[in-house]
Amino acid sequence: MNSPNSTQIYNFIEKLYPICRSITGDGVRETLKLIHEIIPITIKEITSGTEVFDWTIPKEWKIRDAFVKNSKGERIIDFQKSNLHVVNYSIPVNKKVTLKELKKHLYSIPDQPDWIPYRTSYYKEDWGFCLTHNQLQNLEDEIYEIKIDSELFDGNLTYGEFYLEGETTDEVLISTHICHPSMCNDNLSGISVATHIGKYLLGKKNHFSYRIIFIPATIGAITWLAQNENCLENIKFGIVLALLGDAGKFNYKKSRNDSAAINKIIEKVLIDSQLDYNIREFTPYGYDERQFCSPGINLPVGTLMRTPNKEFPEYHTSADNLDFVKPEYLNQSYQIIIDTINIIENNFSYINLFPKCEPQLGKRGIYNSVAGDIKEIELAMLWILNYSDGEHDLLDISKRSGLKFDIFIKAVKLLLKHNLIRKIK
Amino acid sequence: MNSPNSTQIYNFIEKLYPICRSITGDGVRETLKLIHEIIPITIKEITSGTEVFDWTIPKEWKIRDAFVKNSKGERIIDFQKSNLHVVNYSIPVNKKVTLKELKKHLYSIPDQPDWIPYRTSYYKEDWGFCLTHNQLQNLEDEIYEIKIDSELFDGNLTYGEFYLEGETTDEVLISTHICHPSMCNDNLSGISVATHIGKYLLGKKNHFSYRIIFIPATIGAITWLAQNENCLENIKFGIVLALLGDAGKFNYKKSRNDSAAINKIIEKVLIDSQLDYNIREFTPYGYDERQFCSPGINLPVGTLMRTPNKEFPEYHTSADNLDFVKPEYLNQSYQIIIDTINIIENNFSYINLFPKCEPQLGKRGIYNSVAGDIKEIELAMLWILNYSDGEHDLLDISKRSGLKFDIFIKAVKLLLKHNLIRKIK
Amino acid sequence: MNSPNSTQIYNFIEKLYPICRSITGDGVRETLKLIHEIIPITIKEITSGTEVFDWTIPKEWKIRDAFVKNSKGERIIDFQKSNLHVVNYSIPVNKKVTLKELKKHLYSIPDQPDWIPYRTSYYKEDWGFCLTHNQLQNLEDEIYEIKIDSELFDGNLTYGEFYLEGETTDEVLISTHICHPSMCNDNLSGISVATHIGKYLLGKKNHFSYRIIFIPATIGAITWLAQNENCLENIKFGIVLALLGDAGKFNYKKSRNDSAAINKIIEKVLIDSQLDYNIREFTPYGYDERQFCSPGINLPVGTLMRTPNKEFPEYHTSADNLDFVKPEYLNQSYQIIIDTINIIENNFSYINLFPKCEPQLGKRGIYNSVAGDIKEIELAMLWILNYSDGEHDLLDISKRSGLKFDIFIKAVKLLLKHNLIRKIK
Repeated sequence: MNSPNSTQIYNFIEKLYPICRSITGDGVRETLKLIHEIIPITIKEITSGTEVFDWTIPKEWKIRDAFVKNSKGERIIDFQKSNLHVVNYSIPVNKKVTLKELKKHLYSIPDQPDWIPYRTSYYKEDWGFCLTHNQLQNLEDEIYEIKIDSELFDGNLTYGEFYLEGETTDEVLISTHICHPSMCNDNLSGISVATHIGKYLLGKKNHFSYRIIFIPATIGAITWLAQNENCLENIKFGIVLALLGDAGKFNYKKSRNDSAAINKIIEKVLIDSQLDYNIREFTPYGYDERQFCSPGINLPVGTLMRTPNKEFPEYHTSADNLDFVKPEYLNQSYQIIIDTINIIENNFSYINLFPKCEPQLGKRGIYNSVAGDIKEIELAMLWILNYSDGEHDLLDISKRSGLKFDIFIKAVKLLLKHNLIRKIK
Repeated sequence: MNSPNSTQIYNFIEKLYPICRSITGDGVRETLKLIHEIIPITIKEITSGTEVFDWTIPKEWKIRDAFVKNSKGERIIDFQKSNLHVVNYSIPVNKKVTLKELKKHLYSIPDQPDWIPYRTSYYKEDWGFCLTHNQLQNLEDEIYEIKIDSELFDGNLTYGEFYLEGETTDEVLISTHICHPSMCNDNLSGISVATHIGKYLLGKKNHFSYRIIFIPATIGAITWLAQNENCLENIKFGIVLALLGDAGKFNYKKSRNDSAAINKIIEKVLIDSQLDYNIREFTPYGYDERQFCSPGINLPVGTLMRTPNKEFPEYHTSADNLDFVKPEYLNQSYQIIIDTINIIENNFSYINLFPKCEPQLGKRGIYNSVAGDIKEIELAMLWILNYSDGEHDLLDISKRSGLKFDIFIKAVKLLLKHNLIRKIK
Repeated sequence: MNSPNSTQIYNFIEKLYPICRSITGDGVRETLKLIHEIIPITIKEITSGTEVFDWTIPKEWKIRDAFVKNSKGERIIDFQKSNLHVVNYSIPVNKKVTLKELKKHLYSIPDQPDWIPYRTSYYKEDWGFCLTHNQLQNLEDEIYEIKIDSELFDGNLTYGEFYLEGETTDEVLISTHICHPSMCNDNLSGISVATHIGKYLLGKKNHFSYRIIFIPATIGAITWLAQNENCLENIKFGIVLALLGDAGKFNYKKSRNDSAAINKIIEKVLIDSQLDYNIREFTPYGYDERQFCSPGINLPVGTLMRTPNKEFPEYHTSADNLDFVKPEYLNQSYQIIIDTINIIENNFSYINLFPKCEPQLGKRGIYNSVAGDIKEIELAMLWILNYSDGEHDLLDISKRSGLKFDIFIKAVKLLLKHNLIRKIK
């Protein structure tokens, strides 16, 4: 495996875990700064109030502290213990309330009484606290002092962008959201894997240009698309990364354009991996593919996940923590993307220069002439020769053959060396 | 359910049951008169001898009485007890015969010794009696007096037609045969359901025009097509109704033109119904789809049945009686056709007026911004917005989504109200 | 069954079994001479050194004797006992060697200790002996006298060709390889079946022209294609025959051009046979379809086998003998090809001359008007009338109907006789 050392991806998640992120604000800036220590990203700031398609950049949110104190003055719900305790984007509050009044602003999960839920109120002015159901049930009928020391002000929306020029301006887009506070699978796994993919790309010569964007969900994607509308046609392949650290099998959700090459490529990578996986049809609900695949944008962007959102109980709770994601699963996810890049970078079309009958491979020393059993590389050469007719690229041929894509890279080299094929595109 | 009261469809079958129908004659006239008491149909008479494509309208058949008497003068086979006892379209007979001679003209079902079979001899001059196998086996070797008091004369072929003009001259054709004597599933279930569909249509404003034809099988369909050849292009959707009252699951037989919209619509209705069903490919054998889907006619007409012809033992026997069909199954069949009409009437195409990224539904108050769980209506709106690109109609979108069609009607209203989509066809 | 008598195909295999064939030489000539006793084939000789596409006709191989003698002078490996004992195409050798030296040139099958493997060294100058693993393990550490009395010289490559002119120059190609020594399923089953197909064709009037080629594998196919490059466009259907005598189910490997008619025809024959079968996609590895379906040739040629190469243990061993193939399986394979020819010869398109509604078959006496049960021939007539619209040939219609092709030949005759359809191509 090409990946750095075996815990590097996980360790970066550990580092990012404590930060209280949101769709705007210092949590995002701090996160991007740590990414910047690994790969050279550009950090963009877009002013509140800017119109982006049908949306407007919201105010920036700053949070310093938040708590609920009981009559004894104990911080019984405490932002300092978990940033999930405050509803993300809560307006400032500072008052005393009855239990009855307080309860209108409390969120818990009855089925998972030890977990704190994750709630937001981005586009509606509101406030609230999240707590475990056990905490909720122990609240006594008294007067509570509540404080949310937050601020909503005209500031900026912040995002990061990594761009690496290749031999061609045709580009591969990788996108991951960066707006979730202390949760690991959603969204730190995507951030850390994407960052290390960037590091991997820096270490090699690439045919395609690569762009990795670290953006707040929804509004960030919309903002990025509005700002870059004129360059979208360069994007030939794209992947939204999310939920890459849990033990579940891979789920690839296809791009809206069903025939996009990225769909065929990732399916082949998953087949070759011999891991269990699902391919799902596009739906207009989920992560930022909702924007990338809106009908007027319609980019060839799919979504790679392990267990999809809402399909594991830890989703959007405090249980999506450092125990829930594991180095081995993160590394496996990383490898799937590396293998995807490997196909993208090597999937060319060739033309067989000896199309009438098979060329005699034996006389060129690349075909074993005695033994009954053909080698895999020989078989791959026969596949390439037979289907390199101008209508099939290497991916098509490898899929049809049932052999792994890797062997075709080797077979192509051999055939090129012996002038049996010529690259056509 | 939109249906009248719960036994209305069944009760009309009870009323029609005693009548001795055939492909021509007073049984058909009497049946059409009873239909006319419920919906305004036009009754057409076409003279015997008229050429209709490769066929000729046959003579009209009148039957007054028929019996076989034993030597004691007892009517041991008696048309008065069941009109199935005489082979339909029998020529007149009045003579004495031996048992041996008689047996050449008797039909029974050895496997179902208590049931009388239904036989016809429309296009070959012949006569005969149908009886239970038990009756047959009890016949003694004696001289029998046989009489069929029938008449075949130059008269008319009679059929009924209901036409209801809609906003457009594009029309929906519903066809049911009316030539079977006392049997309930075949064909009274079709007649009664079709009649009540007509009644339902009268009570509402319709986008499409609707035509319901009540015709004798084969020759009636051929006659109707020959008489209306110039207006067939108006027919955009069509259904042949038959066998709608038994307990079996639904079977929809597709129109010859596989890609006809009616096929996709009825499949969606059956999916949404959550009932068990089969979709069958077109075959050139069955009911009047044989004529509607002949290659030179080729209308978009499918066939809706519960258990298909020849696939239940009661088919074409005296056991297809008032006990064999049930109000609940008839009502369910009725509802399937109502739901089909509902899709036909509402399946338009729209264009998303905010195709670049999602429009912000939240600021319009039609998207819940706090809770994690999206509502079905919200999901339907996202589906419509994403696929309203000029290439997908509402049926396409609803099928792709897996959601029921009904929710899309509501979602469209909401999106239209907020000027997010525009109807294009 | 049209086949000769029940053991004729098998008996011809018995006759050919002892001959030591190779890709060139007297074994091939002797084989072709025996074929010529049954059907008139032309025998072609192509000089060693002739260039055929990327290949060159190799030297001719003559083998007179070969043995390994132990120190007692006993022929412990003896070509006279089985021609598989010598590696096919071995260069001449005559020397004394140690056991250690000898073992470098010995081939056995550890898993099948009683069987002699079949090995060749066509395109690399080498020599060797094949023996049972039991023999190998009993060899003592002594000095062996080895002799291969062979010769490689500028001679010819020999092949045979049967051509039978039909009403049209469009032709059907049948190909079978003839280069294997004493093995029955591979390749004598193909040779004998192909020969008897030739005999069958001679006995009838054919619409298509038929060409059967008896060629050494690979180099023979390449040679034949190079020699006939200008006439390939006449070939409309083709089958490579191999492995037709074992007890396994049929395996048909499709031609590279997936939509070739031969693929649909053989699938229909296999369906109609009610035997178990597999249809396999084209792969560029196997028999001479490798050449016929190379991208610059791309003929509509599929491959009919029972158990495919490498999928039965007896493959390429002495166990592929006269006990391994059975008359009944050979005859069944023969019949599949006869049935394929039957469809090829009868698969025309017709146009319904009464396309508006059904024509009245009853008045023409070809449709039973009383009984409830329709006959298969009547059903076939309805299928033909409905789908004879200029877009479906008889094969399409028969596949869609689920009825056997045979009944359609009869139904067509009846419909033509009554001027209900007209042949269009």
